[in-house]
Amino acid sequence: MIYADNSATTKPYNEVIDAYAKVAKDYFANPSSLHKLGGEAEKLLTHARSQIGDLLGVKAKEIVFTSGGTEGNNFALKGTAFTFGNRGNHIITTTVEHDSVHSSLQQLEDMGFNITYVPVDSEGRVSVNAILDAITPETILVSVMHVNNEVGTVQPVEEIGLALQKHPKILFHVDSVQGIGKVPINLKLGYIDLCTFSAHKFHGVKGAGILYIREGISLSPLLSGGAQEHGHRAGTENVGSIVAMAKALRMTFEHNQETLRKMSEEFRKVLSSYPDFMINTPKDGVAPHIMNVTIPGMKAEVVIHSLENENVYASTTSACSSKTAQPSKTLLAMGKSPEQASQAIRFSFSYCNNPGDGKKAAQALYKTISHLKKVVR
Amino acid sequence: MIYADNSATTKPYNEVIDAYAKVAKDYFANPSSLHKLGGEAEKLLTHARSQIGDLLGVKAKEIVFTSGGTEGNNFALKGTAFTFGNRGNHIITTTVEHDSVHSSLQQLEDMGFNITYVPVDSEGRVSVNAILDAITPETILVSVMHVNNEVGTVQPVEEIGLALQKHPKILFHVDSVQGIGKVPINLKLGYIDLCTFSAHKFHGVKGAGILYIREGISLSPLLSGGAQEHGHRAGTENVGSIVAMAKALRMTFEHNQETLRKMSEEFRKVLSSYPDFMINTPKDGVAPHIMNVTIPGMKAEVVIHSLENENVYASTTSACSSKTAQPSKTLLAMGKSPEQASQAIRFSFSYCNNPGDGKKAAQALYKTISHLKKVVR
Repeated sequence: MIYADNSATTKPYNEVIDAYAKVAKDYFANPSSLHKLGGEAEKLLTHARSQIGDLLGVKAKEIVFTSGGTEGNNFALKGTAFTFGNRGNHIITTTVEHDSVHSSLQQLEDMGFNITYVPVDSEGRVSVNAILDAITPETILVSVMHVNNEVGTVQPVEEIGLALQKHPKILFHVDSVQGIGKVPINLKLGYIDLCTFSAHKFHGVKGAGILYIREGISLSPLLSGGAQEHGHRAGTENVGSIVAMAKALRMTFEHNQETLRKMSEEFRKVLSSYPDFMINTPKDGVAPHIMNVTIPGMKAEVVIHSLENENVYASTTSACSSKTAQPSKTLLAMGKSPEQASQAIRFSFSYCNNPGDGKKAAQALYKTISHLKKVVR
Repeated sequence: MIYADNSATTKPYNEVIDAYAKVAKDYFANPSSLHKLGGEAEKLLTHARSQIGDLLGVKAKEIVFTSGGTEGNNFALKGTAFTFGNRGNHIITTTVEHDSVHSSLQQLEDMGFNITYVPVDSEGRVSVNAILDAITPETILVSVMHVNNEVGTVQPVEEIGLALQKHPKILFHVDSVQGIGKVPINLKLGYIDLCTFSAHKFHGVKGAGILYIREGISLSPLLSGGAQEHGHRAGTENVGSIVAMAKALRMTFEHNQETLRKMSEEFRKVLSSYPDFMINTPKDGVAPHIMNVTIPGMKAEVVIHSLENENVYASTTSACSSKTAQPSKTLLAMGKSPEQASQAIRFSFSYCNNPGDGKKAAQALYKTISHLKKVVR
């Protein structure tokens, strides 16, 4: 089997599931409980927080645990809007963000905020100047993704963060759900105020994530209640998933991104030799694990299902929007036609793939298309 | 060991952890992915949803999966406020709700909503009439907990639901986090519109919960993004925890609440024979698993730690507020003095306790107190 839908979710490392099960069984107490059992669970939580802080190059107290990427993005955007709405009501983002960003901003728009969607170029990249040009005296937040989830384009987030230093009242949020572990990011040098991560995208388990909140920033919680997470996020901490996430992040960071790059390059090389395919992922300035390809004249959904016969699993667009059957938002923003955008397939690799999977996936795709063409004829 | 802090969290059943690990390992795909692996994960999710719907006596499509009780309460309250704020800006609740309810309402108050906190009687119970008397033409929501998390008092939620039928524009939310599996609740006969549950309170794993949303009600999502959960809650579904939750609920429903009642009664019987203790949990109209007791002259935290020497684990107040060192909110609302409210200890049993644990816990408490008194002298 070649599982090439790692941008939708990754397979948890076996060690990660084992760690989860051990904590759920032996350290089940509520970390907020005052007794010894609660204290032991809290110790695990504190350790995971420091470990993750170290891995991300930030302080432990800047780590807020969430239920995942969607919560992280919702909290960052709505938390900022509700906390700093008195400073201004303008938010800047791009046209290619994840649904959880666009949809949160749409809700804020309904509440009276103004949102500017800065367009991207033909490679799906936003320019630093275009972001800066969008700033008004009302701007309180800029939100730009680190790595595009559909085509893999890396955004100049560190440059944007640096440029925003001239606007100290604007918070800068980065959605690094697709980037972490694949493309290095420096939260401090990039002057990033808020950054979203999701465990199940780096071989952790589902239901855990991180929102990095720079020291000194205090947001009105999205989930309010108890004083957990320094008052930033209430609710009994999911200790097992958090400990598992820390382990998954450490293990992911031990891998070399070049193994992913090699898979993608082999994939590209095989497909480049056939004229039928249009590779949408740019050659440079992209993450090493995503390859997006349009197959003219073929419905993406049909190709996905046919690829199953080759035991290859890929996806149409982002998983979160795959069932809406809309053409890829990112490809449209890059200037592709609606037809091209609806005939796109995303292959996404991970450290659980084997060397050679990129080549094999491309060959399977070619075989599948050739077969489908015969059937159609 | 006698773990008597089950209102803070319960130990997951072993079968529940096994189910979780199996799903996380063998069905790791994203249920939103179009390929076969995604379809298999989606099938598990659909099955869990029907199973839970059946157990709760409601339709599968009325079940929305969340990350837990805090999210469920935040979503129910804020979702209603943001969706139906144009109908009116008044919300009714009681003085004894969980922090996640009070804190959400406080945030809404800051946004311009008016909140009425209806007081309770000396047993911690709110009256149906007091709720009805608080209704104004601006009222859009009534939120009342099913079982109080600190003393175990059962609120007349089904009667309130019935009475609210005369006010069809008011939504009725019930927080049943402490009630489910211990005190029967009929969502349909109680005319409940929204009801919150949390898996880790009934031997499921942390990080999963349910918000029941009655058919026909559509709330603006708290976590927006993808179209998961019928558009009510975005984010990759935590399939493993959800499957585990369905199993935990089924297993919990197979137990007899009388086993818990017996533990609590034995606990009460032993302590009643000593004059030192003031039992705060009323005799009637209470859940079978919670016993709240004030020990005059003793700091609750000291007692909790001393009880550890007897291998008995109890708590001061609710776990979510245990570290704030505030006196119990519920006890104050019941008319206890701040001193009495800060000297209270909560014992909470579960189906994982052994018969006789109630008696043993009470004896251990007596022994501990006697010892502490000698030390103090």
